[in-house]
Amino acid sequence: MITSTANPQVKNLQQLMKKSSVRSAQDIFLVEGMKMYLEAPRERIHKIYVSKSLYEEKGQAFFDGVPMEVLDDRVYAAVSDTKTPQGILCLLRQYHYTLEDLTKKKNPFLLILENLQDPGNLGTILRTAEGAGADGIILSMDSVDIYNPKTIRATMGAVYRMPFFYVEDLKVFLPELEQRGIRTYAAHLQGKNCYDEEDYKGGTAFLIGNEGNGLTEELSSKADVWVRIPMHGKLESLNAAVAASILMYEVCRQRRKK
Amino acid sequence: MITSTANPQVKNLQQLMKKSSVRSAQDIFLVEGMKMYLEAPRERIHKIYVSKSLYEEKGQAFFDGVPMEVLDDRVYAAVSDTKTPQGILCLLRQYHYTLEDLTKKKNPFLLILENLQDPGNLGTILRTAEGAGADGIILSMDSVDIYNPKTIRATMGAVYRMPFFYVEDLKVFLPELEQRGIRTYAAHLQGKNCYDEEDYKGGTAFLIGNEGNGLTEELSSKADVWVRIPMHGKLESLNAAVAASILMYEVCRQRRKK
Repeated sequence: MITSTANPQVKNLQQLMKKSSVRSAQDIFLVEGMKMYLEAPRERIHKIYVSKSLYEEKGQAFFDGVPMEVLDDRVYAAVSDTKTPQGILCLLRQYHYTLEDLTKKKNPFLLILENLQDPGNLGTILRTAEGAGADGIILSMDSVDIYNPKTIRATMGAVYRMPFFYVEDLKVFLPELEQRGIRTYAAHLQGKNCYDEEDYKGGTAFLIGNEGNGLTEELSSKADVWVRIPMHGKLESLNAAVAASILMYEVCRQRRKK
Repeated sequence: MITSTANPQVKNLQQLMKKSSVRSAQDIFLVEGMKMYLEAPRERIHKIYVSKSLYEEKGQAFFDGVPMEVLDDRVYAAVSDTKTPQGILCLLRQYHYTLEDLTKKKNPFLLILENLQDPGNLGTILRTAEGAGADGIILSMDSVDIYNPKTIRATMGAVYRMPFFYVEDLKVFLPELEQRGIRTYAAHLQGKNCYDEEDYKGGTAFLIGNEGNGLTEELSSKADVWVRIPMHGKLESLNAAVAASILMYEVCRQRRKK
């Protein structure tokens, strides 16, 4: 059992929790909580860290076959990202998807996120994308890290199932979608058509921009169509995760009617 | 200028920031930031607190006619709820809406929130409700305080425009809607009909439940109709603000087609 926060493994867990660069260098991400552990793909688990309390409650047999360390409760609390730690932290190997993984099915349904910054928004988008039946998510390199613990938590497990990858330059990347017959729709306040006046039964990709500034002109000018979510009242915009959800569920709605 | 965090006004601001009961007793709520100040209804402003830096930048004339205090920057930082304070904090009188305010228009479009707990979710719901053209929001007494600073921030100003009130017991309250010809729709995983198979052109109220547990059986059994948002994949549910947004934008979509 590890009883000191000075232990090198504990130091490493704290770094993995905080820094995207450390996670990336070790090709690892962390998930916390019993539900996230039980849902995790077994072959992806690198190691688990369990609090003494939880270990004693569940017994060794519960964790058999998985490389593990037990942490003193006080040490566990020092690495946990949550206010009421459930006592299990799981290190998983990162995913490495390619565009082929996201476009296996006919008429792919994708989401493209440019410079999304809020970890909770990103997690919520992954969660809704799974619900709406999307095939994958593509992010600009300057977006928040999908392996941020706050994002992971907000995905409610969708991170295990929704393919994604980051690209250096979305402008340069868009023609790859065009070649695959996927139409790109920019969610834009100046869109001429309402979002529900387009037909999303073919290959579809929505471009969603930064929370404060929306899409860059550079990227939105490359989209095939601009669509607008109509707004009553005096609002300037909707929350990015909400806008993405409304668009994705419109695709879902239209494809149910096929 | 106030230069000490021991000043009674500073102590009071910190209490107002933290405690719903203090806000309620003083009939006051706080908004932070220049944009929220400029959008605030003038007649509702009780007093503003401005950091020394902002005061010097803008000059006295900018704030003329509004009761104000200047706070030393260090003191301002001690009361601010944000990481990068913009230097203006505004005390406003609370709203006191009644059901009549929410049902003035023909075919009212309402949202009923039972035991909603996340301040950010609630703010996002207010923001989306304004965008979707809803007429108001009714909350159970055990929901999070709408005047929580995190909620206020997430509303992006919708708190000034979206009528709302809290009720002691939603079950007892629902017949009041029935009397006004408003149909109640419970967002429920076991709903028989998809949410887009109902007609929302008449008076419509959606019941949305707690983030973790959904609606109580007690309340959902009182709804006229249960509707389901279909989900692909292995998710158990959608985020509460996302579910509310999808439902509200379906109303908005149907009413545009009228």
